[in-house]
Amino acid sequence: MRIILVGYGVVGQSLADILLRRSIETVRDYGFNPKVVAIVDRGGAAINSKGLDLEKMLALKKKDGTVGTDPKFGYPQMSSSAVIESVEAEVVVEVTPTNVKNGEPGLSHIKTAFKTGKHVVTTNKGPLALALPALMELADYNKVYLRFSGTVGGGTPVLELAKRGLLGDKIIAIRGILNGTTNYILTKMEEKCITFQQALEEAQKLGYAETDPTMDIDGIDAACKVVIMANWIMNKKFTLKDVEVQGIRDVTLQALGKASKRGNTIKLIGSIDGNPTVAPTEISKHDPLCVSGVLNAVTFVSKFAGEETIIGRGAGGMETASAVLRDLLDIKHNLASELLM
Amino acid sequence: MRIILVGYGVVGQSLADILLRRSIETVRDYGFNPKVVAIVDRGGAAINSKGLDLEKMLALKKKDGTVGTDPKFGYPQMSSSAVIESVEAEVVVEVTPTNVKNGEPGLSHIKTAFKTGKHVVTTNKGPLALALPALMELADYNKVYLRFSGTVGGGTPVLELAKRGLLGDKIIAIRGILNGTTNYILTKMEEKCITFQQALEEAQKLGYAETDPTMDIDGIDAACKVVIMANWIMNKKFTLKDVEVQGIRDVTLQALGKASKRGNTIKLIGSIDGNPTVAPTEISKHDPLCVSGVLNAVTFVSKFAGEETIIGRGAGGMETASAVLRDLLDIKHNLASELLM
Repeated sequence: MRIILVGYGVVGQSLADILLRRSIETVRDYGFNPKVVAIVDRGGAAINSKGLDLEKMLALKKKDGTVGTDPKFGYPQMSSSAVIESVEAEVVVEVTPTNVKNGEPGLSHIKTAFKTGKHVVTTNKGPLALALPALMELADYNKVYLRFSGTVGGGTPVLELAKRGLLGDKIIAIRGILNGTTNYILTKMEEKCITFQQALEEAQKLGYAETDPTMDIDGIDAACKVVIMANWIMNKKFTLKDVEVQGIRDVTLQALGKASKRGNTIKLIGSIDGNPTVAPTEISKHDPLCVSGVLNAVTFVSKFAGEETIIGRGAGGMETASAVLRDLLDIKHNLASELLM
Repeated sequence: MRIILVGYGVVGQSLADILLRRSIETVRDYGFNPKVVAIVDRGGAAINSKGLDLEKMLALKKKDGTVGTDPKFGYPQMSSSAVIESVEAEVVVEVTPTNVKNGEPGLSHIKTAFKTGKHVVTTNKGPLALALPALMELADYNKVYLRFSGTVGGGTPVLELAKRGLLGDKIIAIRGILNGTTNYILTKMEEKCITFQQALEEAQKLGYAETDPTMDIDGIDAACKVVIMANWIMNKKFTLKDVEVQGIRDVTLQALGKASKRGNTIKLIGSIDGNPTVAPTEISKHDPLCVSGVLNAVTFVSKFAGEETIIGRGAGGMETASAVLRDLLDIKHNLASELLM
């Protein structure tokens, strides 16, 4: 399988690292022998139809900040779209940063990949939050696969659990703590009796929150994940604008204190049960969903199997890259089945 | 797909119920059109090569306590082995009660099914705990599938999460609360400050514990699940005798109190991390594994995706039957792939 890797930040580099470290096992256990034929980052591209040396690419990125400087395989000026269009490959791995304003550049990358007959694995929530119903149709039309396990739960197989683990069942409702930063802030507010502002500053110091924390604390990141789950798991045709979103800026110590007296706490809960929503919600401390710190948790309410909750870290480069590898193996498996038909 | 249903207790009847209620969807969504051609219970068998009327079979069971009395299709004297051997079918669903002494009658049912080329889906922990490595080899030798999702976690897809959800990753260790009865007892001891004996009696009154609660409170049920996970997920060749088992009879209120002062509690934890063990273990109340009441929880420690925890009810007829349906769909899918080769 030939792969074009678009975006070479933390997740992209972690994927290169995993592919290097797991290559013997993936061939042996899954007959999966990936070749990364192109890598694109902000400084340009490196292309080798025989497969790039991933160890060299990691070193080069560290040294120069881009792979475009490779003396033999580097193309410092080449755009990502040109690479996706012109390089022969089966799959585009799109791991550029999320942009929920217009989904770019991820949205164009995905469309270009589809148009040239390439499957897409992405960890980019922007294009999916804005246009997942259309993208799923476009993938079908072009007879290619679109996979995005890493967008919900990081390395935690939230989407797989719902889709595969509950095969034959019917998922009626979903609710979850879908954002680690806000969960960290709410946990610290309660534990240490500090204000939202103080907890936010602490999260920023520890690198759990960005300098501009809007995406997280205003609930937008969680809303993106609600959209993705609603489409993928429950066959809804929602986009970001359909989600009623409320962040955690207005959660007070007083409200947390009152909840605590009732044996409850306040968490930012994304929910799909009728209309999709994201809002600070009082839940019991005994609810399996009630996890602390940066953990994420999702509960699926299914018709026959009952309620299942899955908990894990919702982020991390290596974790998210492991989700990309799962998606690549899934596509590989589907292609093998197709070939036999 | 023709199915022989061996055992027609709570799980068997729940499966019949699900097959009835889901028939339109399973055909539409999965091309899965099951026909139950035989049902065996303690009072005999009912056989119809064209498929039994499941609604009638449920009513008959309620009325007579057996399906063997059916005027047209009933065989009151026929043994389960004779049915498995003589009736043409693709799959045997084995849902008789667990017996960890010698695995019977489940063990013979499974072997007979294999010998006559039938796949097996079972919820019976006895044969697996005693002989899973041998049974997996025997299934391979006879070119049939053996599936047993319902043996761990009831309807909660614990085995699927590990096997499918973490595809491409490597599971290094597993630990879990694998038995709802003991978890209920330990939870009540701590919450209400009552002794083990008092909590056990309460569990028995509520139907959470059997009249003979040995399997649960001595950790044997949990040990069976440890064996199943070790073999299926981690490719170990363990049987029940390899598990070091300690139950919860000796857990005192004093010990629970001491743990509580440290922010911890005591849970019956099954663990595969080196040697397989089951023992009362002190864990943090903030550990995602720390669930209360009859809930089960399992944490997988994986190489790349980090730690994942799955939580759900570990029992229930409908829940366990939903796991049987998942297994049937999995076998159906595998057979379809095989046909294409």
